[in-house]
Amino acid sequence: MKLPVNEFELIARLTPGLPRNATVITGAGDDCAVLDLGLPERWVLFKTDAVVEGVHFDATARPEQIGHKALARPLSDIAAMAGEPSSALVTLALPVRFDVAFVEKVYAGLNTLAARHGVAVVGGETTANPERLLLSVAVLGFVARDRAVRRAGAQPGDALFVTGELGGSRAGRHLDFEPRLAEARWLAEHFPIHAMIDLSDGLAGDLRHLLAAGGVGAELRAESIPISRAARQLARAGHAGGSALHAALSDGEDFELLFCVAAQDAVRLRDAWHERFPSVRLTCIGRITAEPGLRLRDRRGLHYLTLHGYVHFAQS
Amino acid sequence: MKLPVNEFELIARLTPGLPRNATVITGAGDDCAVLDLGLPERWVLFKTDAVVEGVHFDATARPEQIGHKALARPLSDIAAMAGEPSSALVTLALPVRFDVAFVEKVYAGLNTLAARHGVAVVGGETTANPERLLLSVAVLGFVARDRAVRRAGAQPGDALFVTGELGGSRAGRHLDFEPRLAEARWLAEHFPIHAMIDLSDGLAGDLRHLLAAGGVGAELRAESIPISRAARQLARAGHAGGSALHAALSDGEDFELLFCVAAQDAVRLRDAWHERFPSVRLTCIGRITAEPGLRLRDRRGLHYLTLHGYVHFAQS
Repeated sequence: MKLPVNEFELIARLTPGLPRNATVITGAGDDCAVLDLGLPERWVLFKTDAVVEGVHFDATARPEQIGHKALARPLSDIAAMAGEPSSALVTLALPVRFDVAFVEKVYAGLNTLAARHGVAVVGGETTANPERLLLSVAVLGFVARDRAVRRAGAQPGDALFVTGELGGSRAGRHLDFEPRLAEARWLAEHFPIHAMIDLSDGLAGDLRHLLAAGGVGAELRAESIPISRAARQLARAGHAGGSALHAALSDGEDFELLFCVAAQDAVRLRDAWHERFPSVRLTCIGRITAEPGLRLRDRRGLHYLTLHGYVHFAQS
Repeated sequence: MKLPVNEFELIARLTPGLPRNATVITGAGDDCAVLDLGLPERWVLFKTDAVVEGVHFDATARPEQIGHKALARPLSDIAAMAGEPSSALVTLALPVRFDVAFVEKVYAGLNTLAARHGVAVVGGETTANPERLLLSVAVLGFVARDRAVRRAGAQPGDALFVTGELGGSRAGRHLDFEPRLAEARWLAEHFPIHAMIDLSDGLAGDLRHLLAAGGVGAELRAESIPISRAARQLARAGHAGGSALHAALSDGEDFELLFCVAAQDAVRLRDAWHERFPSVRLTCIGRITAEPGLRLRDRRGLHYLTLHGYVHFAQS
């Protein structure tokens, strides 16, 4: 699932030159673009995302799963802003000799997910991509005006929460995860969520985006990180590229929600969540700090963390 | 520029199963989706389109031209509904070893076109497509409520007009055409345009879409078809796959507007057009008929036309 080298650097170079207009509330750099199209009570969310054969899925994926994932990814970005998806367009780039029944199954998976979340599939386009299947899905959604939850907004002292369990998504979950739309809307409706992001690049990587957007740092508690069963199994079998904790910190495509709230809201939020979503784990994994950087506290002390693991001992 | 075999059949099979919701005015099957998001005076247009290396451009294309074309194509679809584009998202699928300067030039071409038409580029995404560059662009736009010009609506007796000159686009125009946004909006504001489409699959092919949507036929006058200089040159050099007229009827990627109006509006429209757009050719190429099918009248008589040329002698 690795993207081209320098992707983030490339985006940083391209973003300042992008044209804007009066509709743009939030342009490039958040989970979705936020647009004020003149609706009295709502902003519009706009997002596009692609899945590519051999990059985001392989030959073992069923076509229904490919269609599901192609739509579920941008829906997860709509969730990350506490939005409600409304419609989608599908661009299907196909090898020249394609199997119609296969494509119908791709759409069946996509349509089932769309229908479950009230999303209209309002068109699409078919083009050629000779070597491999690529699906690009564009999604429109809504969020209450002034209520989009952004990456920026984390405050020192905030409690940091994550939904679900992390790591090992490539064992299967990346193909059939359900975007956390209902959970995110419930959170934003009931609590002042300071910042939120969905986990696509791994906890450590996406947390860094949230910290950079807010100009803050964070301290995680190692024993609180919710490690998935798949990550533990891969680690035991020697397929996780390190420990299960390392997998939970760095594996991509969890598509869980990472968010922060003021510390005084944390216990009330956790209790209300368990009442409302008893089957979805919610874990407080640490706190936001004024000091920049990402640190992990374990039994041996406090360590600075990079995308690839521990860097150096920080303090005891 | 050939698309996979059975593309239209595939779309016809997929379309009935697409989920809808209450926002959908027009879903799959027109130039853009038309959505009622609750704006009092406007509908929203939603469109996505992709260009693929080796399919829509080749190694001779400058990167600025690739970016220009990637955005110009969906803007042409916005034009075909007499809409106004507002914002765009760019999905860039790149070979793993990409050249940052090349990508910056792709964006420079795209941004220049966007800025010229007031379009905000509100984000994008970068992913891997190992063998070739692919750009997918999603566009949002507006059209006055109840004023979107659709493919359906042609009436027997209507005059059929086309902008510009046709054929031979692959000699260069396909990379730097300007979408006919101002022209289309002016048309819809000043005349009751019954139906409109932009020419991407060739005059004969796209006219068939317009006729099928309206349940009508058409008769074209061979001597009125505006043949481009490039089509004439390619035909003379033996590179047009037939006559220059054949090229003007069947070459793709003209990105001109094809539309029809009541016969009594035709002369007034033509005169007003030449006053407003003196440098853009506008030609009445024939008329809509109640009888289905597409016919071409030349000096030898009336012929039924297929996508690939004349089929058989119809009547004298």
